[in-house]
Amino acid sequence: MTRQDGLDVAGLQRRLAEFAAAREWEPYHTPKNLAVALSVEASELVEIFQWLTPEQSARVMEKEGSAHRVRDEVADVLAYLLQFCEVLGIDALAALSDKIDRNEIRFPAK
Amino acid sequence: MTRQDGLDVAGLQRRLAEFAAAREWEPYHTPKNLAVALSVEASELVEIFQWLTPEQSARVMEKEGSAHRVRDEVADVLAYLLQFCEVLGIDALAALSDKIDRNEIRFPAK
Amino acid sequence: MTRQDGLDVAGLQRRLAEFAAAREWEPYHTPKNLAVALSVEASELVEIFQWLTPEQSARVMEKEGSAHRVRDEVADVLAYLLQFCEVLGIDALAALSDKIDRNEIRFPAK
Amino acid sequence: MTRQDGLDVAGLQRRLAEFAAAREWEPYHTPKNLAVALSVEASELVEIFQWLTPEQSARVMEKEGSAHRVRDEVADVLAYLLQFCEVLGIDALAALSDKIDRNEIRFPAK
Repeated sequence: MTRQDGLDVAGLQRRLAEFAAAREWEPYHTPKNLAVALSVEASELVEIFQWLTPEQSARVMEKEGSAHRVRDEVADVLAYLLQFCEVLGIDALAALSDKIDRNEIRFPAK
Repeated sequence: MTRQDGLDVAGLQRRLAEFAAAREWEPYHTPKNLAVALSVEASELVEIFQWLTPEQSARVMEKEGSAHRVRDEVADVLAYLLQFCEVLGIDALAALSDKIDRNEIRFPAK
Repeated sequence: MTRQDGLDVAGLQRRLAEFAAAREWEPYHTPKNLAVALSVEASELVEIFQWLTPEQSARVMEKEGSAHRVRDEVADVLAYLLQFCEVLGIDALAALSDKIDRNEIRFPAK
Repeated sequence: MTRQDGLDVAGLQRRLAEFAAAREWEPYHTPKNLAVALSVEASELVEIFQWLTPEQSARVMEKEGSAHRVRDEVADVLAYLLQFCEVLGIDALAALSDKIDRNEIRFPAK
C-alpha cells in the first residue's frame, strides 16, 4: 500500500509543523489547545449533519457544496489530530493499530 | 515514506471496515452517527486536559497512566475519522493536503 | 428570589416551544438532534477561547465584540438545553438541585 | 411563575459558587476551563444517543437506567453553564430572552 504521491501521514505531519513554525504559531499549540481545537473542528463536522435524518446524512457527498464542506472539516480534524500527536510525540497509526488489536480480543466477531 | 510494517492509513481503514462488517455494526455506521462518535471521542481526549494549566498539559505523556489514556483517545478519534471517510468515500490525506495548499495562500508566512 | 420580569426558566422554555411549533420545527427536534445541537453550540462557545491563555480568557467580556459573542453562545446553549428538557419532560433545575445534593456528599468540603 | 421551593437559577448559581469556594476549586474555574468542561459534559449527554435511531432516542426516559443518566448529564451541563456565567457576570436568562426576541425577527413564523 505505498502511495507514490508522497501523501502519507508522516509527510503531512511534517508539513503542518513547518507551516506552524513559519507563522510563529507554536506558543499557541499547547497539547491542551490542540485537543480543544480538534474537538471544535469535530463539532463543525457534526454541525453539517445535525438536522439530517440518517438517510439524508448518507447522501451528503451528492451536492458539491456540502461535499466540499465535509472534506474541508475532515481536513481540519486530521490537521489538529496530527499536530496534537506531533507536539506529544505520539504515533497515531501505531496507536490505532494497537487499539484494533485490543478491540479484536474485547469484541469477538460473531 | 513507505512503512514496511503495513501501518498506513489505507490498511488501517480496511481493517476497521472488516472489523465493523464482522460484527454487523454497519447499520449503525451512518455518516451522521460516525461524525457524532468522532466528536464524542474528541471530547474524551479534551477531558484529560480540562483542568490542566498549559504547562501541565505539556507533561501529560510523562506518567504512564495518562500517556496510555491519551494514546487510546487518539486511536479512537482516528478510528472514527477513518470510518467516516470510508462510508463517504473521502480520501482524508488528499483532503488535508489540499487544505494545507489553500492555507499556504490564505495565511502567508512572515 | 422571584423575578418580577417573567424571566424564568419555565417561561423561556414555553416561549421556545411555541417558537418551534410556529415554525413547524418539531419533527427535527428529536432528543438526539437537540443533544447534538447543544454540543455544537457548546463548542462554538469554546471556540471563542481556544487560543486564549487562562488570563486572556478572564477578560473576554471587556470588549463589546467578544462579550456579545459569548452572551449569544450562552443563549444558544441554554436554548437547546431547555428544548431538550421540554421534549423529554425533564425538570432541569430539579435535576441540578439533586446533583448538588449528591455532590455535597461525594466531595466533602475541606 | 414563582417557585415556592427555591429552585431558581439565581439560587442554584449561588449554591454552585459556594460549593466551588468551599473546595477551593476557584483557581481551576477560568472561563476557558468552564467552557471546555461544559462542552465535555454536553458530549457525555450526546454519547447516550450516539447509536440510537431518532425513534429510540425519543424513548430514552422509559428505562430508569438511561433516564437517570440523561438527568445527570443535564445537571452537569447546566452546572457548568451557570458557573461559566457566574465568573463572567452573565445573566443567562436575559441572554436567552434577548436571543429569542432577535430570532422572532430573523425567522418569521409561517
